[in-house]
Amino acid sequence: MAQKEDIPHKTVYRLSIYHRCLQRLKENGVETVSSEAMARAAGVKSTQLRKDLAYFGNFGTRGLGYNVDSLSGMIGETLGTTRLQPVILVGVGNLGSALLRYGGFNKEGFEIVGAFDAEPAAVRQASVRIPILSEAAMPEFIREHSVKLAILCVPASVAQQVVNTLVASGIQAILNFAPVFLDVPPEVKVNCVDVAVELENLSYFIR
Amino acid sequence: MAQKEDIPHKTVYRLSIYHRCLQRLKENGVETVSSEAMARAAGVKSTQLRKDLAYFGNFGTRGLGYNVDSLSGMIGETLGTTRLQPVILVGVGNLGSALLRYGGFNKEGFEIVGAFDAEPAAVRQASVRIPILSEAAMPEFIREHSVKLAILCVPASVAQQVVNTLVASGIQAILNFAPVFLDVPPEVKVNCVDVAVELENLSYFIR
Repeated sequence: MAQKEDIPHKTVYRLSIYHRCLQRLKENGVETVSSEAMARAAGVKSTQLRKDLAYFGNFGTRGLGYNVDSLSGMIGETLGTTRLQPVILVGVGNLGSALLRYGGFNKEGFEIVGAFDAEPAAVRQASVRIPILSEAAMPEFIREHSVKLAILCVPASVAQQVVNTLVASGIQAILNFAPVFLDVPPEVKVNCVDVAVELENLSYFIR
Repeated sequence: MAQKEDIPHKTVYRLSIYHRCLQRLKENGVETVSSEAMARAAGVKSTQLRKDLAYFGNFGTRGLGYNVDSLSGMIGETLGTTRLQPVILVGVGNLGSALLRYGGFNKEGFEIVGAFDAEPAAVRQASVRIPILSEAAMPEFIREHSVKLAILCVPASVAQQVVNTLVASGIQAILNFAPVFLDVPPEVKVNCVDVAVELENLSYFIR
């Protein structure tokens, strides 16, 4: 098996997609799957699928395909989602509260254990189950619950300041919805979701 | 200037990020910016910035930097966001309604002109300004308003079926929030936003 640092970032992304396909197959009672069928469901070429999985060892039996259960288990172990990963969410505006109301995270291996806002009293708590705390309570909460992962939904103007607090409190990875570049130490990983940038990118391809 | 098809997809993404930096500079009354300062704000190396812009011609004056107004205008033209681009949103659940309530799209060059749901009567319309129509009304609406761009927030189980209708009605680009691979003709462009995949990817990097 390859060392963690040798595995391309894009392969790690595709592992998540394979994982989801395998979970759907499991739910449907499928026990084995060919690399062709699985590649098609994931939207990749089957050569790509085989190359990606080869980083992690030998899977699949010629003529039989992959065992859904064991391949799914291996990918879950690799991604670190076999145990529920605690996550905090910071910034409970429109998008933040939509994510809190979304019920699908637990199924995917994540549990939002805390939500924080600069003005927690102003947030409409209707249909949001977890309490929303003040940002001042964040550092202690992160340490106490050993949280490593944060979802950031604050306005761009305060994002860097909030990130500095998160990093100083022990957060190692951030999913950033704020439309701004974040300056973090090299050991902290930031993934960005930027709806406006995605729309602009698509608009370039429209004839 | 390079042909559209010769410009790398990643360069087009970065153009959006440069565009946003320039707009912020404009709002702050800044007239010229050095490539170093702009690269830092965008989170790229200045060699990368210069290389990206070189696809579109000669910008900037040695020792003076870029004219914020004219560079921003050029990028807006290239991305096709100088005119308001009409967009429809399909699937008004938690995430869909959060996106509808988000007021920032117009500023970015996009206008959500219509929203559709399989059960429009069931959607809480509170604080959403545009009417929510039945999915049956979608094809005619798309043609009538010459819409080319759609945001997809429907459940994974119905996503492909909805996409088939969108494509048959003339949609050329889709921003997909449904956690599923979409099968589309080669001339249709799909960008995906998948929160669970982003979280899984981050969780891999946590120690």
